[in-house]
Amino acid sequence: MTVRDPAQDTSDYRKDETRLWLSVLDAYNFVYPELNRQLKERSGISVSKFDVLAQLKRYPDGLSMGDLSARLKVSNGNVSGLVNRLRKDGLVDRSMSAEDRRSFVAVLTDAGQQRFEEAAKVHAAVLSECFRHLNAEDLAETTGVLKAIIRKPRDKGIPAND
Amino acid sequence: MTVRDPAQDTSDYRKDETRLWLSVLDAYNFVYPELNRQLKERSGISVSKFDVLAQLKRYPDGLSMGDLSARLKVSNGNVSGLVNRLRKDGLVDRSMSAEDRRSFVAVLTDAGQQRFEEAAKVHAAVLSECFRHLNAEDLAETTGVLKAIIRKPRDKGIPAND
Repeated sequence: MTVRDPAQDTSDYRKDETRLWLSVLDAYNFVYPELNRQLKERSGISVSKFDVLAQLKRYPDGLSMGDLSARLKVSNGNVSGLVNRLRKDGLVDRSMSAEDRRSFVAVLTDAGQQRFEEAAKVHAAVLSECFRHLNAEDLAETTGVLKAIIRKPRDKGIPAND
Repeated sequence: MTVRDPAQDTSDYRKDETRLWLSVLDAYNFVYPELNRQLKERSGISVSKFDVLAQLKRYPDGLSMGDLSARLKVSNGNVSGLVNRLRKDGLVDRSMSAEDRRSFVAVLTDAGQQRFEEAAKVHAAVLSECFRHLNAEDLAETTGVLKAIIRKPRDKGIPAND
């Protein structure tokens, strides 16, 4: 991939860029509601709750609301609400922070661990179904191109060397 | 592209599917807020308002709330709210439906037409900037793969011939 000067783009090129963006939106709007529906129906949790459980699974020592919020890219208030609901479900518990004994972190309960593992199978099955027209090369190439989009703006005009 | 049997997927394949989905989410979460921020700053309208204007631009005879709602894939209530705010901005007006003289459709005003054209330039410039690491082949291939995702579930197991 080369770095172009966007100011040089032709009208046709801009149309192709718009088509790509619309196809990202279409893919998102196709997969996300299906994930949410099947996770709720088959595992009793929303995608938002699943994402919280997935983060806590990766951090067995627990995560503060601030860390969870940063990792999930949602507001602190939303994360607190999600965690409170997961505590009522018995899937998450509060634990004293090992780093700061005055604060608490959220941790998975055994039930939460089990529910996450069941839900992860549903999550994988939905993606497999949604992506069934794609082969291994499609997956790798498309992931590579989409990852190139999120290179930071400070890269502007400077060829990336990663 | 060939149609696979998702039940045969290996663990590695599933990881690649998850990576693709995470890269779709990342691309969405990178581009969408940037589009929204720049459209608001430079054109005074949100992406949601831009999307309404873009649809009305395509249909000079106007669209009913139901048609707009279906095209934008958002609820009727949300669309009515957006259209009311666009009317207050002077960008959209109500017009009697040519098909049904008892009902109204939303149409672009001259000011709305002009604002949309300015905003469309901002929209295209943001996409160009976000996609600057992508070349023509990346755009075409990725659009093709993402479009394959949204083939309808009834295609299941039947090779597509389009």
